[in-house]
Amino acid sequence: MAVTTGAPRIDLNSDVGESFGNWRIGDDGAILQTVSSANIACGFHAGDPLTIQATARIAAENDVAVGAHIGYRDLAGFGRRHLECSYDELAADVRYQLGALQAMAGAAGARIRYVKPHGALYHAMIGHETHSRAVIDTIASYDPELPVLLLPGSVALQHAADAGLRGVAEAFADRNYNPDGTLVSRREPDAVLHDTSQVVENMLRLAQDREIIARDGTRIPAEAESICVHGDTTGAVEMAQAVRAALEDGGVEIRSFVA
Amino acid sequence: MAVTTGAPRIDLNSDVGESFGNWRIGDDGAILQTVSSANIACGFHAGDPLTIQATARIAAENDVAVGAHIGYRDLAGFGRRHLECSYDELAADVRYQLGALQAMAGAAGARIRYVKPHGALYHAMIGHETHSRAVIDTIASYDPELPVLLLPGSVALQHAADAGLRGVAEAFADRNYNPDGTLVSRREPDAVLHDTSQVVENMLRLAQDREIIARDGTRIPAEAESICVHGDTTGAVEMAQAVRAALEDGGVEIRSFVA
Amino acid sequence: MAVTTGAPRIDLNSDVGESFGNWRIGDDGAILQTVSSANIACGFHAGDPLTIQATARIAAENDVAVGAHIGYRDLAGFGRRHLECSYDELAADVRYQLGALQAMAGAAGARIRYVKPHGALYHAMIGHETHSRAVIDTIASYDPELPVLLLPGSVALQHAADAGLRGVAEAFADRNYNPDGTLVSRREPDAVLHDTSQVVENMLRLAQDREIIARDGTRIPAEAESICVHGDTTGAVEMAQAVRAALEDGGVEIRSFVA
Amino acid sequence: MAVTTGAPRIDLNSDVGESFGNWRIGDDGAILQTVSSANIACGFHAGDPLTIQATARIAAENDVAVGAHIGYRDLAGFGRRHLECSYDELAADVRYQLGALQAMAGAAGARIRYVKPHGALYHAMIGHETHSRAVIDTIASYDPELPVLLLPGSVALQHAADAGLRGVAEAFADRNYNPDGTLVSRREPDAVLHDTSQVVENMLRLAQDREIIARDGTRIPAEAESICVHGDTTGAVEMAQAVRAALEDGGVEIRSFVA
Repeated sequence: MAVTTGAPRIDLNSDVGESFGNWRIGDDGAILQTVSSANIACGFHAGDPLTIQATARIAAENDVAVGAHIGYRDLAGFGRRHLECSYDELAADVRYQLGALQAMAGAAGARIRYVKPHGALYHAMIGHETHSRAVIDTIASYDPELPVLLLPGSVALQHAADAGLRGVAEAFADRNYNPDGTLVSRREPDAVLHDTSQVVENMLRLAQDREIIARDGTRIPAEAESICVHGDTTGAVEMAQAVRAALEDGGVEIRSFVA
Repeated sequence: MAVTTGAPRIDLNSDVGESFGNWRIGDDGAILQTVSSANIACGFHAGDPLTIQATARIAAENDVAVGAHIGYRDLAGFGRRHLECSYDELAADVRYQLGALQAMAGAAGARIRYVKPHGALYHAMIGHETHSRAVIDTIASYDPELPVLLLPGSVALQHAADAGLRGVAEAFADRNYNPDGTLVSRREPDAVLHDTSQVVENMLRLAQDREIIARDGTRIPAEAESICVHGDTTGAVEMAQAVRAALEDGGVEIRSFVA
Repeated sequence: MAVTTGAPRIDLNSDVGESFGNWRIGDDGAILQTVSSANIACGFHAGDPLTIQATARIAAENDVAVGAHIGYRDLAGFGRRHLECSYDELAADVRYQLGALQAMAGAAGARIRYVKPHGALYHAMIGHETHSRAVIDTIASYDPELPVLLLPGSVALQHAADAGLRGVAEAFADRNYNPDGTLVSRREPDAVLHDTSQVVENMLRLAQDREIIARDGTRIPAEAESICVHGDTTGAVEMAQAVRAALEDGGVEIRSFVA
Repeated sequence: MAVTTGAPRIDLNSDVGESFGNWRIGDDGAILQTVSSANIACGFHAGDPLTIQATARIAAENDVAVGAHIGYRDLAGFGRRHLECSYDELAADVRYQLGALQAMAGAAGARIRYVKPHGALYHAMIGHETHSRAVIDTIASYDPELPVLLLPGSVALQHAADAGLRGVAEAFADRNYNPDGTLVSRREPDAVLHDTSQVVENMLRLAQDREIIARDGTRIPAEAESICVHGDTTGAVEMAQAVRAALEDGGVEIRSFVA
């Protein structure tokens, strides 16, 4: 986080553009009025070209930064299954997705402002050397000005630094944290937070004090510059809206990390 | 054809980059040493990202102009089956392919110089108002400097003119023509020419005299600025090489229509 | 319609199993408690194997007949776009889908009882000679005991008769009819009926009197043995439930046409 | 190996039906006159329905046993990339492929006689507990009479035994072996044998003496009931033909392990 004087600020990001043909996911219209950064699917894990283009247009209309939500080539698995492709295959797949999204964003007068790996690829960024390098190297080659949104602790953050890319750490609004700052595994019953007031309180503390309260009450420092919220259910949109409202009420500016 | 004084010139174009994963088609290395324009598949009818990138690199190394060989979304049918999609779907699919190829070409220091619809989409350009408009409008919106390679007589040539795009007519080296300038249908036994000397003679006449000899011996004017040759079989590559050699021997310059 | 003495009966059919991976469509659980015939997607226009298997199991548990909802190979278009494939391609694609669904149904102790083409393929059955023949011939070769659910007037009904297959005509609960018995085009404002009481009244008349009231009030004979209802929205499921309830209240037995 | 008195016998198997649409791989016609077992692609890693059907027909005409060459859902990777899907996803994908191939084989008057996992899935059978169980359980549920062709040492052989399935071990004609019976890694320079006479000698010894000569000259016992040969290049077909000829000359009967 580029710490500055003045009012606290933070970014809100969400996955959008994940419909595919006749299949609809998420209330993109609502969530794009709530967040400052739009992770737009690029067609490999989700997102047909028409959906992508329409989503980029709505993002542009709402002054939401367009991010490339790149994923493994796996529509049937929604990019949530690790695919053991080679460095070269992954690098080419990433570049292809960046180019495709760039064109769709361009039709809306926008352009890609950052990159966020999706699903299993996001998880590969944590510790899969080859895949992390393939993603980071490709972004650096495509446009070294593009920041990459990642989980704190990801090896890709180091790779990004090595490559001269800006890595941006994010927090998850509705996830519980271990005292060491890692996410509580989804196999644990308290992995996901459902209480809006708890979520709101946590995120307000994050934005104001750069701290998160872990599952055991420990206060842990958190350098996240962005908060990931969801828009795929009615409840999720409402929680995102509550987070935004609380942050604004608390004097936190919602602003893209690329603004 | 921008007629100029001086030596005659013509472009040679060929479809490349049509391998997909483990499936290989065509001797792209050989054909890219023969032609001046490379119609590179964009991933919808053929061409995986790694293949596309490698092909763009070879084209760039050989000073061959990179063209976007856009097609219907139909890998199983190799883009050869008409797909009755909507204007909006097709427009978005075309833009997506242009952006994807642009990124892959960029990795090789190249960029898209023209567009050529593939297979059933190429045929739709002849008379399918909606699909022709979708393709032409999208190209005009994406980059109005991009010429479009088309069959003479295509409605898309008129649409291109309407949209301020440059339409470029092409001839087919190995196809027989009717006296009215249309191609002899593939249902006819003499649709395809297999005699290299006849092919070479025809193409030399085209480049030098802007004429083609039809199946009945009629001399028909032909304004083609480009000749389409094939590279998908050993015989095809040899025929392409023979055409090039004969043209050069005849004092015809082989040069991209965008050069 | 095999007219019999005794109480009137009719079949209710609906499209199910059309989810794909992470994308969900329809409340299959609710609709499968309402209908007597389940048109299960086979993976080409919709339906991943896991979805198909789960849907077949629910159908079996509810004593609903399993039908093969075959479609063009076009996930991006949900099978709603005409794909001009060859007779041989379509025949092989149909057989592949039948075999795949047969295996999934088998895991639930069920088997395919009938076939219903989907979307653009359903429409091709009306007048596309080649595609109609490909579908009918393949079904006849695969299992000549399988009836085929079709729109009245389809050329495929004649092809089915030629091939010794049983063709079954269906009516659409929520569609308006022209006086000649054809469906009012979706381009017309009154193509779709939204008034549940009107829909219920029409279908009750169909089941009891074998008549439908056309848009202009004309009473037209209707030989439909099945009524197609929808399950893809909450309102659709409720309308389907209302149709079933009204039919049962009116003494009409809801029973599969293969029972 | 069900050891019997009388003449030695062994099976020859090869991957076939791996073309896809316009992309051709392998000389299936030639290889199907050479082997006794045909591993036919089922559409997930390769093989469109038309190709599968044609291949099954040629297999049937040559009295070659039809095997289901099941793979991960990954056309772009030809099934050679590990896909970390769930047990349920894989089980459903396998069943779907079995059903689809069964229908295509049925059109040729044949039926599936055995199963052989392909590529990365074949490798997963060696030690991936979940994927091995998913494959074995699905086959056992689909048809417990189907043997499964596997690499010696695979955990799936134990799982097959647990499930009451017959596991069949195979040897690779053109691969070099370590003294412990494992394959020399493809990362080693001598992983693949190119000398036909060496290959022929090895396979003859295998069939006659149930031994293989390892890379260091060690004679190791080999219980393989089948030999895997390739048909994807001209040289491969010739090597397969040489193996067959040598075996027959040596008095070894070439016969499917299901015959």
